[in-house]
Amino acid sequence: MLRALELAANGPERGINPRVGCVIAAPDGTILGEGWHRGAGTAHAEIAALAAAGADAVRGATAIVTLEPCNHTGRTGPCVDALLGAGIARVVYAVADPGADSSGGGARLRAAGVDVEAGVLAADVDAFLGDWMTTAKLGRPLVTLKWASSLDGRAAASDGSSQWITGAESRNDTHLLRSQHDAIAVGSGTVLADNPSLTARASDGSLLPDQPVPVVFGARSIPEGAKLRQHPRPFQHVDGHDLAAVLRQLRESGIRSLFIEGGPTLASAFVRAGLVDSFVAYLAPTLLGGDRVALTDLGVDTIDGALRLAITDVARLGDDVRITLTPKGQ
Amino acid sequence: MLRALELAANGPERGINPRVGCVIAAPDGTILGEGWHRGAGTAHAEIAALAAAGADAVRGATAIVTLEPCNHTGRTGPCVDALLGAGIARVVYAVADPGADSSGGGARLRAAGVDVEAGVLAADVDAFLGDWMTTAKLGRPLVTLKWASSLDGRAAASDGSSQWITGAESRNDTHLLRSQHDAIAVGSGTVLADNPSLTARASDGSLLPDQPVPVVFGARSIPEGAKLRQHPRPFQHVDGHDLAAVLRQLRESGIRSLFIEGGPTLASAFVRAGLVDSFVAYLAPTLLGGDRVALTDLGVDTIDGALRLAITDVARLGDDVRITLTPKGQ
Ligand SMILES: NC(=O)c1ccc[n+]([C@@H]2O[C@H](COP(=O)([O-])OP(=O)(O)OC[C@H]3O[C@@H](n4cnc5c(N)ncnc54)[C@H](OP(=O)(O)O)[C@@H]3O)[C@@H](O)[C@H]2O)c1
Ligand SMILES: NC(=O)c1ccc[n+]([C@@H]2O[C@H](COP(=O)([O-])OP(=O)(O)OC[C@H]3O[C@@H](n4cnc5c(N)ncnc54)[C@H](OP(=O)(O)O)[C@@H]3O)[C@@H](O)[C@H]2O)c1
Repeated sequence: MLRALELAANGPERGINPRVGCVIAAPDGTILGEGWHRGAGTAHAEIAALAAAGADAVRGATAIVTLEPCNHTGRTGPCVDALLGAGIARVVYAVADPGADSSGGGARLRAAGVDVEAGVLAADVDAFLGDWMTTAKLGRPLVTLKWASSLDGRAAASDGSSQWITGAESRNDTHLLRSQHDAIAVGSGTVLADNPSLTARASDGSLLPDQPVPVVFGARSIPEGAKLRQHPRPFQHVDGHDLAAVLRQLRESGIRSLFIEGGPTLASAFVRAGLVDSFVAYLAPTLLGGDRVALTDLGVDTIDGALRLAITDVARLGDDVRITLTPKGQ
Repeated sequence: MLRALELAANGPERGINPRVGCVIAAPDGTILGEGWHRGAGTAHAEIAALAAAGADAVRGATAIVTLEPCNHTGRTGPCVDALLGAGIARVVYAVADPGADSSGGGARLRAAGVDVEAGVLAADVDAFLGDWMTTAKLGRPLVTLKWASSLDGRAAASDGSSQWITGAESRNDTHLLRSQHDAIAVGSGTVLADNPSLTARASDGSLLPDQPVPVVFGARSIPEGAKLRQHPRPFQHVDGHDLAAVLRQLRESGIRSLFIEGGPTLASAFVRAGLVDSFVAYLAPTLLGGDRVALTDLGVDTIDGALRLAITDVARLGDDVRITLTPKGQ
C-alpha cells in the first residue's frame, strides 16, 4: 500500500479526480504491474496497473489500490468490471470512495467472490487525498466567503466608493487567499461596478504563481473591455441563480475550492443557501454608516434564527482585523 | 507641594470639581495653615487653608496649591481675590487650570505683584487629577460608545429581537464598563423597546458597588412602569437634540464619563457630532442581515470621508470579539 501511495503521488494534484495508485502483486508477493491515475479522461490507476502487468499474469493476483475501485461509468468504464474481468482474486484498498455515484465497488467485488480488505493505511491515504475527499463528499467545491467592511459592516460609502476600505496588508492577504483557491467568484454587479481584474497579485503588482479561474455569476453580459478578459485563465460565466447546480458543475470542471469576493448580493445568496464553508471578514477601523451593507438580507427573521458561526482565528493585519469563521457545528 | 497633594487626596474623587490641596507657609517655611476642597459648593482649598491659618498670620506668606487658583465666581468667589485680599506674597502651583472660565488666575496674581511659580510637581498632580483634567479641557464628559452587533453589523434581527446577540462574557464585560462610568445614556427608543434597568450588575445579577446615573435622551416620556425608575440612582431625562449642550450640562452636574449604550439612532447622532472619545464594539460570531444596523447614517458620503479610528485593543470574550478604538489622531 505504501508503494501504491507513492505511485498515487505521481498524479496531478488538482482537478475533479483523486490521485490514486495501484500495485498488482502475485500471491507470492512479486510485483506484476504498477499504475497511477494521470488525470481526468485518462485510465484509472487499476486499469493502468492491469495493463502494465499484462492480461495473462494477473489471474488470481492481488490488486492493492489507495481508493476503493470505482463502480460507475464516467469517461472510463467501472474499474470493478475490469478487475473482475481480469480474474483478480483479492483487492486491498485504503479508503472508501465517498462519491454517491462511484462508491459501492468493494461490495460488488465481494459479492462476486473476490476477497476484499478495506482500511489499510486509511488515515495516511485520507490525509494525502485532502480536499478531494471533502469535496467528493459534498459533491461541490469548498466555498470561502470573503468580505471587507468598515467596523459597522459597510462594504462601500453611500456613493458606492469602496476603494480602499481596508489597508494594504489586508489586500495582500486577500491576494494570497485568491491564489490558494482554484476559482474566484464575483457577481455581475461587481464586474460592472468595479471592473476587477480578479488576478492574484503580489504586493508589487506582479502575478502570483497560482491563479484562480475567474467565475462571474449573473445573467448580464460582461463588457468587452472588462479587465477579467485579460486574466491569464479564461473566465467562466454562469447564470448563478441555482447556486447548488453551478457548484456541482464547477466541481465537475475540476474546481475544488471557490473564493467568493462579493458583492453583497452574491455573497448574501451564498450565505442564505447555506453553501459557505469558511468566512473571512476583513474589518477596517472605520465607520461608514449608510445603506451599502456588506451582507444584505439573509432570510433571518428573529434573533433565534441568527446564522451561528464559530471564530477560528482573529488576526490584526496592519490597521485592520481579520476574523475567520466556520459554520457552527461544522 | 507633596503635602498639598496629600491634602488634595482627602477630597471627593468624583464630581465637577477637582481635588485640590493648599498649604500656607511662612517665609521661614513654617506651616501656617492647610486646606483641601471637600466638594462642590464648599470652600476651595486656598480659602480653607487661609481660614485655618487665620487672617493675621498670612500677610506676606506663601500659598502652595496643586492647581492654579481660580479666577471666576462660581458657587464661591474667585480664590485669586481671596489670596490678594489676604496679602499673600508668593503663590506656587503645580498645574494650570484648564477651564475656559476659571483659568487666568496665575496671570492676575502676577499682574497684582505676587511672586508666582507654576509647574512644581506638575506631572504628578496632572496624573493625580486624571480624567478631571481631560473633561475640564473638553468642557464635557468623556464619552464611550458601546454597541453589540452581529459580525455583519446588525444590532437586532428583522423583527427587532436582540436578546441576546452577544454572549454572557460580553454582557458581563459591559456591566463592568457601566460601573466604571459616571453615567449611562440610552435613547428613548431603547427605553420603549427594551425597558432596560440600566444598572451595573455582576454575573449573579447582584448590583455592582458603583452604579452609573441613567440618562435618557429623547422628548418622549418614560412609561410609569419603566424599570429604570427602580434604578438606585435617580435618572436624568434630557431632550438630547443639542448633544453638546446636554454634555456640558451633564458635566456641570458632576458627570465626568458617559457610557452610551444605544440604540442605533442615539449612537449614530453622537458619532455624527464627533462627540465620542472611545468606541467599544462587541461582535458576535453570527450573521443577521436585514435592516437593523447597529449604526445608521453617519453623514459619510464617500469613502474618503470615512470616519477613521485606531484600534487600541482586540480581545476575545467567550465566543465574541471585543474591539476597542479611539478616533484617529487622538
Ligand atoms: N467590500 C467588499 O468586500 C466588496 C466586494 C465586492 C464588491 N463590492 C461592492 O459591491 C458593489 C456591487 O454589489 P452588488 O451586490 O450589486 O453586486 P454582486 O453581488 O457582485 O452582483 C449581484 C448580481 O449577481 C447576479 N447573481 C448571480 N447569481 C445570483 C444569485 N444566486 N443571487 C443573487 N444574484 C445573483 C445577479 O445579476 P444578474 O442580474 O446579472 O443575474 C445580481 O444582480 C460594488 O459597489 C462593489 O464595489 C464590495
Ligand atoms: N445591540 C445593541 O447594542 C443595542 C443597544 C441598544 C438598543 N438596541 C436596540 O435598538 C432599538 C432601538 O433603537 P432606536 O434607534 O429606535 O432607539 P434609540 O437610539 O435608543 O432612541 C432614539 C431616540 O432618541 C431620541 N434622541 C435624543 N437625542 C437624539 C439625537 N441627538 N438624535 C437622534 N435621536 C435623539 C429620539 O427620541 P425622541 O423622539 O423621544 O426625542 C430618538 O427617536 C431597540 O430594538 C433595541 O433593542 C440595541
